[in-house]
Amino acid sequence: MFETKTLASYIVSSKLDKIPDDVIHEAKRAVLNWVGCAVGGSGEPAVDTAIRALLPFSGKPEAGVLARPERFDPLYASVINGISGHVYEYDDTTPMNYIHPTPPVASALFAYASANATTGREFVHAFLMGFEAESRVGNAVYPAHYNAGWHITATAGVFGAAAAVGKLLVLSTQEMIWAMGLAATQASGLREMFGSMAKSFHAGHAARNGYLSAVLAKAGFTAGEHAIEGARGFAAVLASEYDLSKIATGLGEDFQIRYNTYKPYPCGIVVQPTIDGCIDLHRDHHPAPDSIKAVRVRVAPLVLDLCNKRDIRRGLDSKYSIYHSAAVGLVRGKAGLQEYTDDAANDPLIKRVRERVSAVADPSITEDQSRIEVDLTNGETLTRFVEESLGNIRRPLSDAQLEDKFRDQSVPRLGRAQVDRLIDLCWRLDELENVNTLVEATQ
Amino acid sequence: MFETKTLASYIVSSKLDKIPDDVIHEAKRAVLNWVGCAVGGSGEPAVDTAIRALLPFSGKPEAGVLARPERFDPLYASVINGISGHVYEYDDTTPMNYIHPTPPVASALFAYASANATTGREFVHAFLMGFEAESRVGNAVYPAHYNAGWHITATAGVFGAAAAVGKLLVLSTQEMIWAMGLAATQASGLREMFGSMAKSFHAGHAARNGYLSAVLAKAGFTAGEHAIEGARGFAAVLASEYDLSKIATGLGEDFQIRYNTYKPYPCGIVVQPTIDGCIDLHRDHHPAPDSIKAVRVRVAPLVLDLCNKRDIRRGLDSKYSIYHSAAVGLVRGKAGLQEYTDDAANDPLIKRVRERVSAVADPSITEDQSRIEVDLTNGETLTRFVEESLGNIRRPLSDAQLEDKFRDQSVPRLGRAQVDRLIDLCWRLDELENVNTLVEATQ
Repeated sequence: MFETKTLASYIVSSKLDKIPDDVIHEAKRAVLNWVGCAVGGSGEPAVDTAIRALLPFSGKPEAGVLARPERFDPLYASVINGISGHVYEYDDTTPMNYIHPTPPVASALFAYASANATTGREFVHAFLMGFEAESRVGNAVYPAHYNAGWHITATAGVFGAAAAVGKLLVLSTQEMIWAMGLAATQASGLREMFGSMAKSFHAGHAARNGYLSAVLAKAGFTAGEHAIEGARGFAAVLASEYDLSKIATGLGEDFQIRYNTYKPYPCGIVVQPTIDGCIDLHRDHHPAPDSIKAVRVRVAPLVLDLCNKRDIRRGLDSKYSIYHSAAVGLVRGKAGLQEYTDDAANDPLIKRVRERVSAVADPSITEDQSRIEVDLTNGETLTRFVEESLGNIRRPLSDAQLEDKFRDQSVPRLGRAQVDRLIDLCWRLDELENVNTLVEATQ
Repeated sequence: MFETKTLASYIVSSKLDKIPDDVIHEAKRAVLNWVGCAVGGSGEPAVDTAIRALLPFSGKPEAGVLARPERFDPLYASVINGISGHVYEYDDTTPMNYIHPTPPVASALFAYASANATTGREFVHAFLMGFEAESRVGNAVYPAHYNAGWHITATAGVFGAAAAVGKLLVLSTQEMIWAMGLAATQASGLREMFGSMAKSFHAGHAARNGYLSAVLAKAGFTAGEHAIEGARGFAAVLASEYDLSKIATGLGEDFQIRYNTYKPYPCGIVVQPTIDGCIDLHRDHHPAPDSIKAVRVRVAPLVLDLCNKRDIRRGLDSKYSIYHSAAVGLVRGKAGLQEYTDDAANDPLIKRVRERVSAVADPSITEDQSRIEVDLTNGETLTRFVEESLGNIRRPLSDAQLEDKFRDQSVPRLGRAQVDRLIDLCWRLDELENVNTLVEATQ
């Protein structure tokens, strides 16, 4: 009945010194991981195109954007940060709701903090409030909402950005309720856009709209006060089934960021176990590409729902293809950024193997698993069952692995010395006097 | 299968000289009606609050907004125009889909035309393309989409704004398809917000996001190409039932603006027949407010779904109350802007009668009808059956009645001489060399 108010009131009254150290550390892991993604993605055509289109509309250029020289007002800076940080498909995931939780929240917060003096402690606290808000809204409507075709990173993310920026703007509970309402009524983002630039725009759009919601609410712009639970509110309208008890249960104790995971490969989360298995087969057997006759993959049904792209011509498409992902694992023994470029998408060796991959949805296989069989021309069949994919909640990337991932993405753009400094700033995020130091270190 | 492409291709290739005169005239009626609403609404607190919140974020102040001295970049000007033009609840309605069609399209177009030299012919043509696009998207998903709780003016309106601005930006068909995709993925707006400032924000939000969609598409920002019909596209995700044949059938011949209607009263469209009947009873019987013992109203079920507000303290709430609307008709014999203010909401005479009104949903009553019974203390019962409400498609407001409505709203803000000039400019819209003349005449 009052879930919106409960959530708003928690965000407003939360104190950082009540939040356990492991939660703070996970916030820094999430930010580190995402800053790396944003630096890596910042040179992509989607970012260039958006900057070209939006720069003429920007307000006062008070905010830097991550890893770019252009400056914007903080609302547009949120959009650009969002595109940069999501375009590589390398960001974090909370598997209980399939949200990529850091992009919408961090995109807005870095834009805010670049234009408004913000300490590291304020930033981390606001980040955790945003993470909690979007996760709980997402938990309440997942899976029906996601299965219907909503890009939940965007639709829940807008609540996260509103909560986070609203925390920094020191909204009252009444204002935070309005901010939640304004966020709910701007929640949008369709899975139909996957594979196009519009997908990464979703993260920026959610960041910006959430930020705007907090700004409007602070000025006294009113909204419906039952945004989440109302009869015509977010849950009822955007999900055929939902469980509102997930908004409040354990709030302030069961921090959702503890369930965050980080992808080892820059593509759809659900193809990651298949890549693990194909890389293992490459390492153990070195099958020559032209010796591969057929590849059969058994995966969870959601994999084919999300990553069933067959007609691959561009790197962006290849990120949503179980066929391409299996092929790069088998052919190259790795699946890094270079395996999801336009070049890789059109590499004849990869293409040849990709065309021989078939995939079957098997409800007995979990989303962390994959069963792979590779028939070779010599009559041999290689098999592999991946029980837990790397990066999942029970096999998390270590801090050192997160740093490696960060370096892979950002050294080509910034050089090793600057990247080392940036990694250090991320680990010391909660000690920074002004978070803009970190934004500037990406530029 | 290719509805998005069909619609995009029609908009791109349409020529104004192929559009019949009655359609052009209806476009001018729609614009006249809406400009009056925007002038009237431009001093409301929702507009002041949004201006205060958004002005610090505006880009170059190249665009005027209707009836205000502040200047914005054209994207924010779209937002402000949208709030001004919708806040009075006095705008137009297409009853086949319950869209208020002019606000999102005209808000974006006037913002564009204020910053970019645009002839009246270009404006009218773009307006009609936007009107057609949003109407057809709305027709395809109505009523399931609306009944689910979507504010269809916003969710369909974003397509209209994208089409209209896209027409002026001379998008190619490919770019228009992307613009439709970017519009679809930003489509949002919940009926839960009705009665708050967020409702009128929806019109501005749709205008701005549609405008932005066209700008991004023009720059080459890509989107999914089956925005409307795709498996995870607008229709499938935002409506449990839909009919895609309504996108293309009669396109270019059966212009949807022919079905447009204009409200005589500044409140929810569905309470208008009840107001008609109560005004008639006042005129014919002059019942003293304290002689009214009970008022029974039988109305179409949608009326109670939309306008069932009982606890009325503010003017904004009263616009969604069948009880308040019946009471003002009976007590004051009219239902103009003065009957939906905070003062009217708290008028003891109105309040007394309002508390005596009961309403029953009756599926045998159409949305243009109302059956009213008023019990008086002397034992008498007054009755009235309204068969066709004023302003509906079969009893349209005349051009002169639209002018009267325009004057009612705008003379208090602009004075009679300027209003006469503005009305003249609206009727000559298609002859204007630069539509900014009209924007300036509102200021």
